[in-house]
Amino acid sequence: MAQKSLIDRIFGSRPHAEPDEYLELDLGEYEEIVEEEPAGTYVKVAELINVSSLTSLKDEVYKGNIVIIDIAHIKQDRVTLDRVVKELRQVATDIHGDIAGLGEDQIVVTPMSIKIDRKKLGASAY
Amino acid sequence: MAQKSLIDRIFGSRPHAEPDEYLELDLGEYEEIVEEEPAGTYVKVAELINVSSLTSLKDEVYKGNIVIIDIAHIKQDRVTLDRVVKELRQVATDIHGDIAGLGEDQIVVTPMSIKIDRKKLGASAY
Repeated sequence: MAQKSLIDRIFGSRPHAEPDEYLELDLGEYEEIVEEEPAGTYVKVAELINVSSLTSLKDEVYKGNIVIIDIAHIKQDRVTLDRVVKELRQVATDIHGDIAGLGEDQIVVTPMSIKIDRKKLGASAY
Repeated sequence: MAQKSLIDRIFGSRPHAEPDEYLELDLGEYEEIVEEEPAGTYVKVAELINVSSLTSLKDEVYKGNIVIIDIAHIKQDRVTLDRVVKELRQVATDIHGDIAGLGEDQIVVTPMSIKIDRKKLGASAY
């Protein structure tokens, strides 16, 4: 990784990370995890390259995890995007979770009892 | 909003939304919320314009919410960014939550029992 992002430099990348392991949405690694406790819920970050991986993302939400999905790769294909949004909405409906778009390229899907607040903190309205 | 983003068009904006209510990180609204149930945990989206709003973001995590913070406005100021990251890390440590950078401009902070999975779904390693 010739040019490390600022976030990477602050949070620290894993020394042996594969350069292409994280594509465009580069996850800044944070090595100093407080404690390795088993978590009931995970925030999972996903990059949707094609529809074939949609099932695994839906499974994550069904398992009770929050998924932040980068749709930059598929959003140009309107048919694919519509299908993805429709299926994710169905998951949110099924499990009484929530779904919202975040910025231009992300969709957040949450499991039961976790809702997405539409009121943005720190913006002009705050 | 002269040019509605694709995400906005799909998820549907509120008809009376103020044009500047959401700054750069435009939250795509999703009107068809499944049910208005009280949620135990919220995903809150924040835009950090200056350090003065950091306390309210930390309070959200202490209250048990997940906060996705857009740091684009402050990341050029390294002193401010370092302080922000240090304080957010302290919150994550205090409450046995988690913190990670997401892409270039976002930091995710989670409360107790919610962890952030560093393995990105759908990427080449998957």
